[in-house]
Amino acid sequence: MAKFLTNKEENYAQWYNDLVIKADLAENSAVRGCMVIKPYGYAIWEKIQAELDRMFKATGHVNAYFPLFIPKSFFSKEAKHVEGFAKECAIVTHYRLKKDESGKGLIVDPASKLEEELIVRPTSETIIWNSYKNWIQSYRDLPILINQWANVVRWEMRTRLFLRTAEFLWQEGHTAHATSEEAVEETERMLGVYSDFAENFMALPVIKGYKSENERFAGAIDTYTIEAIMQDGKALQAGTSHFLGQNFAKAFDVQFTDKTGKLDYVWATSWGLSTRMIGALIMAHSDNNGLVLPPRLAPIQVVIVPIYKNPEQLETISVAARNIKSTLEAQGISVKYDDRDTNKPGWKFANYELKGVPVRIAIGPRDIENSTVEIARRDTLTKETIPINGIEAHIGRLLDDIQKNIYLKASEFRKANTFSVDKWDDFINILDNQGGFIMAHWDGTAETEEKIKEETKATIRCIPFDAPEEEGKCIYSGKPSKRRVLFARSY
Amino acid sequence: MAKFLTNKEENYAQWYNDLVIKADLAENSAVRGCMVIKPYGYAIWEKIQAELDRMFKATGHVNAYFPLFIPKSFFSKEAKHVEGFAKECAIVTHYRLKKDESGKGLIVDPASKLEEELIVRPTSETIIWNSYKNWIQSYRDLPILINQWANVVRWEMRTRLFLRTAEFLWQEGHTAHATSEEAVEETERMLGVYSDFAENFMALPVIKGYKSENERFAGAIDTYTIEAIMQDGKALQAGTSHFLGQNFAKAFDVQFTDKTGKLDYVWATSWGLSTRMIGALIMAHSDNNGLVLPPRLAPIQVVIVPIYKNPEQLETISVAARNIKSTLEAQGISVKYDDRDTNKPGWKFANYELKGVPVRIAIGPRDIENSTVEIARRDTLTKETIPINGIEAHIGRLLDDIQKNIYLKASEFRKANTFSVDKWDDFINILDNQGGFIMAHWDGTAETEEKIKEETKATIRCIPFDAPEEEGKCIYSGKPSKRRVLFARSY
Repeated sequence: MAKFLTNKEENYAQWYNDLVIKADLAENSAVRGCMVIKPYGYAIWEKIQAELDRMFKATGHVNAYFPLFIPKSFFSKEAKHVEGFAKECAIVTHYRLKKDESGKGLIVDPASKLEEELIVRPTSETIIWNSYKNWIQSYRDLPILINQWANVVRWEMRTRLFLRTAEFLWQEGHTAHATSEEAVEETERMLGVYSDFAENFMALPVIKGYKSENERFAGAIDTYTIEAIMQDGKALQAGTSHFLGQNFAKAFDVQFTDKTGKLDYVWATSWGLSTRMIGALIMAHSDNNGLVLPPRLAPIQVVIVPIYKNPEQLETISVAARNIKSTLEAQGISVKYDDRDTNKPGWKFANYELKGVPVRIAIGPRDIENSTVEIARRDTLTKETIPINGIEAHIGRLLDDIQKNIYLKASEFRKANTFSVDKWDDFINILDNQGGFIMAHWDGTAETEEKIKEETKATIRCIPFDAPEEEGKCIYSGKPSKRRVLFARSY
Repeated sequence: MAKFLTNKEENYAQWYNDLVIKADLAENSAVRGCMVIKPYGYAIWEKIQAELDRMFKATGHVNAYFPLFIPKSFFSKEAKHVEGFAKECAIVTHYRLKKDESGKGLIVDPASKLEEELIVRPTSETIIWNSYKNWIQSYRDLPILINQWANVVRWEMRTRLFLRTAEFLWQEGHTAHATSEEAVEETERMLGVYSDFAENFMALPVIKGYKSENERFAGAIDTYTIEAIMQDGKALQAGTSHFLGQNFAKAFDVQFTDKTGKLDYVWATSWGLSTRMIGALIMAHSDNNGLVLPPRLAPIQVVIVPIYKNPEQLETISVAARNIKSTLEAQGISVKYDDRDTNKPGWKFANYELKGVPVRIAIGPRDIENSTVEIARRDTLTKETIPINGIEAHIGRLLDDIQKNIYLKASEFRKANTFSVDKWDDFINILDNQGGFIMAHWDGTAETEEKIKEETKATIRCIPFDAPEEEGKCIYSGKPSKRRVLFARSY
């Protein structure tokens, strides 16, 4: 079989990059830090979008669209937000090009300078709350439960396909509420949606928790996160939901009259999930043969490859293959029949393994004689021969089983790579030699957190919701602590 | 009934703007020329997207995503494209903000000036063909059939919600082919998709035709268009499909080896349809009571309003209403039951008329006694009382009938406002006093076209595909002509 990839045990970063390129998911573009999401990668994003959009609507949200550009002055309005976002960003300063003196090239027309520069949105709280100001007068106008599917730009210096790019695609929810309780409930609800999506669709076990103050969204009172472990033992933040309190309402002067006739500022949440999740999907499950996609997000769930020596054989096999295809499609299973004559079966097998298609069906002349097919599953790389009769039930069960198995494997990996650590030496040793999730005591101060980060590059990924109360001593300072928090190096 | 809108007979432009605002479709934002698409307007766009996306995929296309930014130099590569697009555009020149001396405001960091400015895409031919260069070596790599859903920016000076905004949403198809014939076929196929969509979903009769050279897309060999008439007699270009020849392949040096081993430049098409179509939808069908939405694109197809005097009545009515709702939803019909106690039925009736909901069901105590409901259709504003028993079949037929009727009405309007004109005086007279589509002879020169435009503001909307050959004299120059072309003032 063709060898497409660097071994992940040899060079994990190179393995990841090879995989993204060779599986035709994305590539770098001519614009520094911006990627091209190729059709196969975009098809995964479409699957992610469809499921999340369904879940958002089922929880009462509607979609809308706000401008790409944000006036520079908006960023200064929320004191902490400006620290976090008004730094590395794309700034529009002019609105016209003209020909240069040679008449062939183009220059920026100096006469077209904007009075106020526009920032390409890195996130949309400011422009959205500036709109909400006009939408909200009374408690009757609340809640507002809006989501936006959009592109955003953050001028990242070091970029990696899907994981960190200057432009990326995401959804951002922005909700407005009459009470603090309702906004906190919404923040929790949406983290629940993300965690449900991660576990049941991405087959990605996640730890739900609070971010420490240092790691909070700029402008949030509280940030909830789901954290997943990758196969190199690093953590990846897979989705965040923020309780914004009244910060943005105050910054944009959004007040409402409550039921008692009293004026108050509106309570807010925001929550987002991006194309970064495709990076997580790749890094959590894939192997040295290529992608391993959970069936529920696989653009192609089943591929059928004919094995033949002459056109007559192909013709007979094609009749059976097309029957199987339509039988499976009737069950809502997506199927590709690859009868291209330009590539041999062995090449096709390797190619669909690279692309992570969960189930491969091979049909040869002997299968036709016996009314059987050979089935290979991508997750375990095992094969079996089954009768064509009843194939739809078999494949349906198989896809469910693969989905569960991928989740189980990732859960077991996480279990094997999560350590409860009490000594600083062990803490460093684990980070340097094997990686993984470390549950350790922390004294609750930003100062200690900073020092741990400086010395080890590990950060507090979250304070897990379900961390039991337990007396202990901070792994770094030795000061008292009431519960363990999750440390890891991260993407 | 509440009067929400300016009469369209009094001030069509004001009526349109009132309608967009009052029906909660969109509003202007704090950023000049950029709109906020509100949830109800965005829901219509989601319907449009879903149908078009289905049609694109059924014709073999896949989605992908290319960068928002395009290096300035890319625009100079195609000689005509630069004339059309590298003018009024948003230009990114810097990538960092820093605090000003006061420490509160923000300024652009001069040290962050980009070596080459980036243009926010007004259309993506250049960045896409720059990518295709690496994707295409042989005829085996062709065709490439890609579509992108994206936001684009054109720095328009005079903007109108949906019709002309600095930022808008659209889809842009970009295909690559081995032969000219195949590319032309694709250009025709996609115009067919647009015209099918316009007529069968938007209930908008369109005229398919070629653009004159003056009106072609910058960089195209040929532009095909669908043109629709609005209720003020002006034309609106509702979708275009371009045969680009080898222009972009030559500009970006994209060559392939054909079956005989010969090197040739790749053939291209592009085609796009935007949120402008929501403007067309509004202007083609709506009336002085508000929106009239064709059922196939209506976010809410049926609204149920309870008529009651006390909570007991509401309770009884609600049971019936919820039954009807689930019966209709089981048929794939989208239904809203509005039992809010904050507004009276009369207000609700007017509000759903404003919002263009195709069918309204009212249920009062007497209806409950008789097992009937009152049904009102939005297009004709007529009412009837029908039995609840069998309501799903009745509503299903009614929605089909409304869809057809809206199309028919628009067709009749177009017929009544299309004029075959042979005299210059009549030409001017019609344009100035009633508006409409004018079929007239033209000598085929750009010069005449320009002069007609200068003197009357009318342009050649298209040379209809089905224009019969007919000897005649140019309406302006008197020179010989072989067929009539379509003139109109336009949006």
